[in-house]
Amino acid sequence: MNSFNFLSPTEFVFGKEREKECGKYVRKYGGSKVLIHYGSGSVIRSGLLDRVKQSLDAEDIPFVLLGGVMPNPRDVLVYEGIALCKKEKVDFILAVGGGSVIDSAKAIAMGIPYDGDFWDFYSGKAQIRSAVSVGTVLTIAAAGSEGSGDSVITKEEGMLKRGAGSEFIRPKFSVMNPELTCTLPAYQTACGATDIMAHVFERYFTNTTEVEITDRLCEAVLITMVKETPRVIADPNNYDARANIMWAGTVAHNGIVGVGREQDWNSHGIEHELSGLYDCAHGAGLAVIMPAWMEFVMHHNPMRFAQMANRVFGVPMNFENPEETAAKGIYAFRSFLRAIGMPINFEELGAREEDIPVLVEKFGLGEDGRTGGFVKLSSADVASIYKLAVKAKL
Amino acid sequence: MNSFNFLSPTEFVFGKEREKECGKYVRKYGGSKVLIHYGSGSVIRSGLLDRVKQSLDAEDIPFVLLGGVMPNPRDVLVYEGIALCKKEKVDFILAVGGGSVIDSAKAIAMGIPYDGDFWDFYSGKAQIRSAVSVGTVLTIAAAGSEGSGDSVITKEEGMLKRGAGSEFIRPKFSVMNPELTCTLPAYQTACGATDIMAHVFERYFTNTTEVEITDRLCEAVLITMVKETPRVIADPNNYDARANIMWAGTVAHNGIVGVGREQDWNSHGIEHELSGLYDCAHGAGLAVIMPAWMEFVMHHNPMRFAQMANRVFGVPMNFENPEETAAKGIYAFRSFLRAIGMPINFEELGAREEDIPVLVEKFGLGEDGRTGGFVKLSSADVASIYKLAVKAKL
Repeated sequence: MNSFNFLSPTEFVFGKEREKECGKYVRKYGGSKVLIHYGSGSVIRSGLLDRVKQSLDAEDIPFVLLGGVMPNPRDVLVYEGIALCKKEKVDFILAVGGGSVIDSAKAIAMGIPYDGDFWDFYSGKAQIRSAVSVGTVLTIAAAGSEGSGDSVITKEEGMLKRGAGSEFIRPKFSVMNPELTCTLPAYQTACGATDIMAHVFERYFTNTTEVEITDRLCEAVLITMVKETPRVIADPNNYDARANIMWAGTVAHNGIVGVGREQDWNSHGIEHELSGLYDCAHGAGLAVIMPAWMEFVMHHNPMRFAQMANRVFGVPMNFENPEETAAKGIYAFRSFLRAIGMPINFEELGAREEDIPVLVEKFGLGEDGRTGGFVKLSSADVASIYKLAVKAKL
Repeated sequence: MNSFNFLSPTEFVFGKEREKECGKYVRKYGGSKVLIHYGSGSVIRSGLLDRVKQSLDAEDIPFVLLGGVMPNPRDVLVYEGIALCKKEKVDFILAVGGGSVIDSAKAIAMGIPYDGDFWDFYSGKAQIRSAVSVGTVLTIAAAGSEGSGDSVITKEEGMLKRGAGSEFIRPKFSVMNPELTCTLPAYQTACGATDIMAHVFERYFTNTTEVEITDRLCEAVLITMVKETPRVIADPNNYDARANIMWAGTVAHNGIVGVGREQDWNSHGIEHELSGLYDCAHGAGLAVIMPAWMEFVMHHNPMRFAQMANRVFGVPMNFENPEETAAKGIYAFRSFLRAIGMPINFEELGAREEDIPVLVEKFGLGEDGRTGGFVKLSSADVASIYKLAVKAKL
């Protein structure tokens, strides 16, 4: 096990109708003027936005509104949010939505106290040194952004998707009411589930040895997702299954299952180019990329993939031929993804084989670049993974 | 799943030699005058206390010292600590030791800003409204106190052992260097492991249904302990096994594996009377009590015990007779405890059957009292559990 620091100071406020308390928590964490940041009209139609406003009214906390966050949230709205917050002297940003809304809120939060262009944090030009406080009312179990210090934003010019991270942008509190996720369409629910599982897999496949506790914690989340996801696809109003998935999504990404081990986020990076170019759902892109990445890298340590196959998908362990067990595990994962309605190849996602050179170029490794924790990939490797994803089938 | 709030703001600083950074973290969390609180001479002999002092010196943070904390920490030293801290205007308490030292530090921390007797918080007369900041340098993987808001203190008059809890006494940071636990004798190591497993079991046996994610997380910790504990008993200097146990101990008790479910802490309460009366190690007392409690209550929900037996100890599931599977699981747990050198009955612990009436009276339910989350126990039930513990064998 490697050395690490672990800090997860977010207060999670979990359960039915807890959004009615969000004004109280804004007060607790020092907010006196709020930006309510949200996405499409669904939070208006469902009445959620009204309940949030009432909760702030009840605490006499004034607010301004900024909606319109899209999936794969854009830099354009972030600039608008920063300007609005500066003008209105906002000191607390309340994100009401899923990962895209929360990531957009975090970008605004880091941009307000910064004199330069907020994109500097995403392009790697500057480090985040402060941020306005963020709280969330989560409506989608997926990104884990409600408990993380990460944010991913897409620059419209060139559709460049990049991430930034800092302890300063961890939410102070996150209201998590599983009921709010019951109205999600099956496709979005499955995308969220795939994203949650990917967050665990990116931590699970590691070269660090002697990590029994975090291995087992990772498997706990994965086993839960394998059990609970089909239940909510079949019965969208199953509160308890929704609740298990929602808490699994937070545990998957607040850091606790991945400390002390080298991680490998190449699947996320390789996917980002897909959702950047085609504006597809991140989870759907992961369903196509993650198993292809597994196929490409599993020979580096077949036993690690065999262990996953055995413990998560119940594949009998073949100690004499762990590659076989590993391959069956990847097949089981793809079968699971297909069963919950996810695409598993380029065609099903709406991606095109002829774009692979563009995708690889955007990934940005160039001729000699290498990236990765578990296996270091070159541009040629990334192209191979896209090609495996083109022809994937069951 | 039930509604819950989860907040674990402690910063965990994990790895080799990290104690050299504790001055930096005292500074980060606002300490300007420190009480270093510790137990016996072992932290002096090992050089740990010197390293901690040097780390504070390097940050120019002045400190005073108070050693002498005993296992089952006493109120007498707490009073002394409170008086010392008031006199010296201490604003940060750094506990260097195991759960007893940390619990004593927390008691001092809550006592300093309180005008009355700190015991009011333990007797239930008063609620904790503020506390001086606490940090820890952990030397024993066991109590989970490094990440919890709990403290247990023994009142010397009558040897009354009681607990108090509040978010105010959660440590700001906890330095966790697994190397520091390598010098622990096998018996203390095993006591700690038993305590860690008990913290999970007290959360695991619940009447709350639909708790797949927290069930699986609980099992992840238990499976890790079953694998790693015998390794450190056989090879005390196995850093990686020590590291897995140390992080498992924190995860077991910082709350994350137990949210959203009714819990049952009767085993801990019933044990506290044993270590209160005989001054035995808490973990050793739990090794005697926990399986006896399981035997007494398993009929309330045999499937829950059968699930534990199957998933943690690999007992084949007998769906037609889950009581049989459950009983085999309890037997496997006792066998495990015996294998790591723990007592499993009164005689091996040094307790006496004839004291049972005294133990039951101290437990304090009286004639009509009932307590418990999984199964509500009466005084007669508690006596029965003590009796099961008297005659337990393999």
